Amino acid sequence: MRREITGFSNPTVKFLRSLREKKHRKQEGKFLAEGLRLLTDARESGRLPEILVMAAGRETHPLLAELERAVAAAGGEVIETSEDILAKITGKDNPQAVAGVFTEFDTALSALDRNAAPIWLVAQALRDPGNLGTMLRTGDAVGAGGLILIDDCADPFSVEAVRASMGAVFTQRIAQARWEEFLPWLRGGAGQLVAASLRDARPYRGAPYAAPCFILVGNESRGLPEAYEDACDLRVTMPMKGRADSLNAAVAGAVLAYEVLAGLEGRGS
Amino acid sequence: MRREITGFSNPTVKFLRSLREKKHRKQEGKFLAEGLRLLTDARESGRLPEILVMAAGRETHPLLAELERAVAAAGGEVIETSEDILAKITGKDNPQAVAGVFTEFDTALSALDRNAAPIWLVAQALRDPGNLGTMLRTGDAVGAGGLILIDDCADPFSVEAVRASMGAVFTQRIAQARWEEFLPWLRGGAGQLVAASLRDARPYRGAPYAAPCFILVGNESRGLPEAYEDACDLRVTMPMKGRADSLNAAVAGAVLAYEVLAGLEGRGS
Repeated sequence: MRREITGFSNPTVKFLRSLREKKHRKQEGKFLAEGLRLLTDARESGRLPEILVMAAGRETHPLLAELERAVAAAGGEVIETSEDILAKITGKDNPQAVAGVFTEFDTALSALDRNAAPIWLVAQALRDPGNLGTMLRTGDAVGAGGLILIDDCADPFSVEAVRASMGAVFTQRIAQARWEEFLPWLRGGAGQLVAASLRDARPYRGAPYAAPCFILVGNESRGLPEAYEDACDLRVTMPMKGRADSLNAAVAGAVLAYEVLAGLEGRGS
Repeated sequence: MRREITGFSNPTVKFLRSLREKKHRKQEGKFLAEGLRLLTDARESGRLPEILVMAAGRETHPLLAELERAVAAAGGEVIETSEDILAKITGKDNPQAVAGVFTEFDTALSALDRNAAPIWLVAQALRDPGNLGTMLRTGDAVGAGGLILIDDCADPFSVEAVRASMGAVFTQRIAQARWEEFLPWLRGGAGQLVAASLRDARPYRGAPYAAPCFILVGNESRGLPEAYEDACDLRVTMPMKGRADSLNAAVAGAVLAYEVLAGLEGRGS
């Protein structure tokens, strides 16, 4: 059942390694996720890897055995290889015992059902894959429907983003769109667009949030373009007591998302 | 006034590069910070680099000219070098135009004045330097006094932590201590110890926070040891609506810190 691979120059190993680069991910429409916990989250969310790569010679965790059966039953491939090769594939010195190859999801805006959740996170030109993954993780925690990536953001299917999401890449919807597509889509239905902003903004605490609430966070160094802020229904600001005038983008999104959650729940929605 | 360095093998270049490694930072008691904004923040906080390294041949920003004068007046050294060498020193392809060498601060717990601020952040075994820097940045934003690092944390003087702090490494106090030192120190004066926890915890929203409030966040993958949670005055939990049972450590600290800030201000303290 398992195919064994022992050589670094094996074409499958080369293929798997190539998925660490965005260019190859886009060519293949595939991405890599590592770790038993992540892959179990994926399975429980109805996503199975097409290829499962396991380190040989380790004791098989019951969850891994289950995963292996599920992948094989679905017609996927199971590969057994050395820890060294697994380290090479994932780019980590101490690799997890397992990694999987998944097909990238459909990230069309039109596939989103905005009424599926009271909160949506929206990031504009977010460049750090760690921040992106962290926003997915926060979205999962606040019961958001997903993360909408506006303009040129980091790739949500990069190893770093998938890792930082702690499995939320499989539970949150992900959409990618230009601002020029996003705004008409948003205005084509219900939805309040809220920006974390410093300009003409009211205190974030107790602001009149309404579901479905779209929380917009800007680029790490430049923030949101002025025109984007102007298009928002609500601009809110968090206290800044120190020298700095901004928070880390993922932190700002999280502080705001938890406030929106409290506001929506407090009003019984 | 400026000393020009053109060779990669120059001893000063080697010294500067060595500061990217913790071992060498500890040996020398020095660390590296890069970028005009960071160095300007440092200067305005009363910290000047002992060595200022500038890229040659760029137009000098007025703030950089000011910085150069201040460093020279304080008896520091100003070095002019190529962009390539600067890139080598900072480990970044597109280096900032300037970097500086600072003496590491005193991080003894005994040097902290707990009454200097209503909020203090405390991290236990925090391993990611980006999270550490982000916590410093959040601390600055909520008006915290500083960040106390318990047990084996990432090095707050690493290039990554300094970078993620966005200058807050110069405005926040930093202390390092073992738990066995921290707890007696804390109990030797006023202070409420609050943990973000899932065990026997009350909702974080509207909990009875009191200044000086010490917000304790645990390790990225293991959370807090049970005994540490037990020692807290208050255990609070954030809603978790999704599959995951935890937030990114820096995010959890920030959501809680903003709630504490609102609680303390709402009660007029």
